[in-house]
Amino acid sequence: MTAPPAPADLVISGCTVLVHDPAEGIAFAEDAAVVVRSGVISDVTTAAAAAGIDAVERLDARGQAALPGLINCHTHAPMVALRGAAEDLPVEEWFNDRVWPIESNLRERDVELGARLACAELIRGGVTTFADHYFAMDTVADVVAETGLRAVLGQAYFSSQGPGGREASLDFALRRAGAAEGRVTTCLAPHAPYTVDDADLAATAELARDHGLLVHLHAAESRAQTEHSLARHGATPVEILHRVGLLDVDVLIAHGTGIVDRDAAALRAATGRVAVASAPRGYLKFAWDPTPVRFLADLGIPVGLATDGAASNNTLDVWESMALTALVQKSATGDPRRLTARQALHHATLQSARAVGLGDRIGSLAPGRRADLILVDLTGPHTQPVHDLAATLVHSARSGDVRTTIVDGRILMRDRELLTVDVAAVAAELTERLPALVERGHGRRIQEYDA
Amino acid sequence: MTAPPAPADLVISGCTVLVHDPAEGIAFAEDAAVVVRSGVISDVTTAAAAAGIDAVERLDARGQAALPGLINCHTHAPMVALRGAAEDLPVEEWFNDRVWPIESNLRERDVELGARLACAELIRGGVTTFADHYFAMDTVADVVAETGLRAVLGQAYFSSQGPGGREASLDFALRRAGAAEGRVTTCLAPHAPYTVDDADLAATAELARDHGLLVHLHAAESRAQTEHSLARHGATPVEILHRVGLLDVDVLIAHGTGIVDRDAAALRAATGRVAVASAPRGYLKFAWDPTPVRFLADLGIPVGLATDGAASNNTLDVWESMALTALVQKSATGDPRRLTARQALHHATLQSARAVGLGDRIGSLAPGRRADLILVDLTGPHTQPVHDLAATLVHSARSGDVRTTIVDGRILMRDRELLTVDVAAVAAELTERLPALVERGHGRRIQEYDA
Repeated sequence: MTAPPAPADLVISGCTVLVHDPAEGIAFAEDAAVVVRSGVISDVTTAAAAAGIDAVERLDARGQAALPGLINCHTHAPMVALRGAAEDLPVEEWFNDRVWPIESNLRERDVELGARLACAELIRGGVTTFADHYFAMDTVADVVAETGLRAVLGQAYFSSQGPGGREASLDFALRRAGAAEGRVTTCLAPHAPYTVDDADLAATAELARDHGLLVHLHAAESRAQTEHSLARHGATPVEILHRVGLLDVDVLIAHGTGIVDRDAAALRAATGRVAVASAPRGYLKFAWDPTPVRFLADLGIPVGLATDGAASNNTLDVWESMALTALVQKSATGDPRRLTARQALHHATLQSARAVGLGDRIGSLAPGRRADLILVDLTGPHTQPVHDLAATLVHSARSGDVRTTIVDGRILMRDRELLTVDVAAVAAELTERLPALVERGHGRRIQEYDA
Repeated sequence: MTAPPAPADLVISGCTVLVHDPAEGIAFAEDAAVVVRSGVISDVTTAAAAAGIDAVERLDARGQAALPGLINCHTHAPMVALRGAAEDLPVEEWFNDRVWPIESNLRERDVELGARLACAELIRGGVTTFADHYFAMDTVADVVAETGLRAVLGQAYFSSQGPGGREASLDFALRRAGAAEGRVTTCLAPHAPYTVDDADLAATAELARDHGLLVHLHAAESRAQTEHSLARHGATPVEILHRVGLLDVDVLIAHGTGIVDRDAAALRAATGRVAVASAPRGYLKFAWDPTPVRFLADLGIPVGLATDGAASNNTLDVWESMALTALVQKSATGDPRRLTARQALHHATLQSARAVGLGDRIGSLAPGRRADLILVDLTGPHTQPVHDLAATLVHSARSGDVRTTIVDGRILMRDRELLTVDVAAVAAELTERLPALVERGHGRRIQEYDA
């Protein structure tokens, strides 16, 4: 006689569950249930089967869809403090006249409040993991621990900081790896090939290899940058990454809208795991080209969804990035057949998980994966009727339809109520600090944009 | 001694009110109030001044912005029944293989349920007026009366129906003008120059002139249509409208993404009030060009915001159309400075009101205008902090942030709760009817797309 199994921690039942078939196609299990034990999905089964499972907590999710939590593959979370502070400008003015002068005023308390507000927005928008590339990342790691999210964190640096910048990035990556009960993964975060010199990039590649760390950086952000790089260095940004060894480690390239045909050779020669994070809203806003998703797909390179910081993108709404990726790719390639809604959902799930180096842990609702999931209300008038649930999710549903957000089996938002952040308090204090934050009379900036 | 003034019907106070300055610039009155009497805005004043006004009902709107209700300048409301039924297809297949075969199954009950669901979606998304171009419009007018919205309704027709189509459109327009206590305005609604012949279009122009009616039709929907029209008729769609006299009456052109430089002559020669409705999401989805907003602005032609039907656009989310119009125009013109957020708000308010022929009644919160307004929650983490409220509204807020929708002073949604539609009942009945609706084995279609 065996002992009865311990009760499950959480059973979510009655929902339609997004699952991946063995060929990674998007499928939907109706009237299904997700069983969570010790922060991990132990089973995806039928609601009927789940009814017999003893559980500490049950969520009745009828009328909702359960999806893997969204992943924001490239953001600067604390920059929500600058949301709307630099509008309707070309990128040079955006950086040199607004963002980099303002960032020279940043205090650790601004980063803390910004990160906390960002985490609230991410949780409300159904994001369970974010890849953050910014300053004062110990503070961000603390906020991640406090708010319950999962994150891939990298301390940004410029070569203008001297070797100390790179050393601090490594120090952070080694010290905080596995923080927040394992929810924090760390990486090295050189800013970009136009602000970090080749020697520093090469040293970063070596550190990444020595310590088994992901490298997360901006590269080929726009077509203009690629042309500028060719004129100045005789090589594209991607070719520079190749030359310094960064394509032979795990690397996450933010934006890549300036990736061009000739980059195929460097990308094919890569021995590391190369991925790209795409934040389509900001590209429309800056009048940049879109990330060449189809070109990258043909090379087998995953493209994860992102929002960039709210200073350019205005929100951290990954759901919108998913919809815009589908729409903009149709428009840019002149082919209304691609991306399909299912392809967009593949980017939002498995490809995004791979992009941030967590392809074996998140991105799919399947036994053994971390229990990072969201429940999406389908009963609103804008999501009815349902002819094709993939289309409903990508093109009709919105981030505001996410009712419940769960990370590692812990409920961070229940029925739209945030359980780990006091938004009103954070917003009030941040608002008081804005006049000092946006003061630009000092004439300083943290860096010069010339790419 | 004078009698005390009668109490106001409604006072909304404590909000930031979007107002237009005398040059039509977007401005914001903080800690303000809107006073409503007999369905009309009688005053926009300070919260302090409003505190002394006797009122039947008061809304405390602190933390919210009051905006003119959004206007959907071109939709086919009942087509929400087809939301998601024709995905990821070029327009020819979308029409010929899916939408027009399915529409041959439409019953009046489908139109009724679709219209009711659409009205729910519109109210939830902060839309207070919609311009609808469809069939069985008596049914739609009844639903407008029932749900409390304002609408500009036209019975669609093709020349393939014979003269009866045009006559029915006129009959509807004359019979239902002023219905729903004046909230229904009517128009003539030929389908498009590629489905209605020149003689029918010319007769329509004459009827419009005789009866003082707006004409609402599709034209120059895509660049391909314009090229096809040039090849077939030696004239662009806009030149055809000019030739048949439709630019000498009040005309609302849906889409116009195929309006080209040579159309400037015809548009400059127009003696009627010409406007264009733009639905940018669908253009991305079909890989069409965007509406040439800057070109039209230079000609003094208002461009109103629209969603088209949910069969192509997937939602009736005019807020998204506003954001996408700003983003896509920056991208398409290569100029990140335009549209600014304030320009987008001008399209959403005064230009949209003019586009549907109601420029003197709605589109602005000012004394004498109909009391059509929405209250938008600004306290969410994704809309904080506020550096620039215009940017917050256009680029950070979402339709789901609309908490209260008011038409003619009547509250149709209060704190997200719909007061005039039972969504669950409508969705349930519509869902039961879907198998019969989408059946295409009969091989019929209501029309053939060849443009």
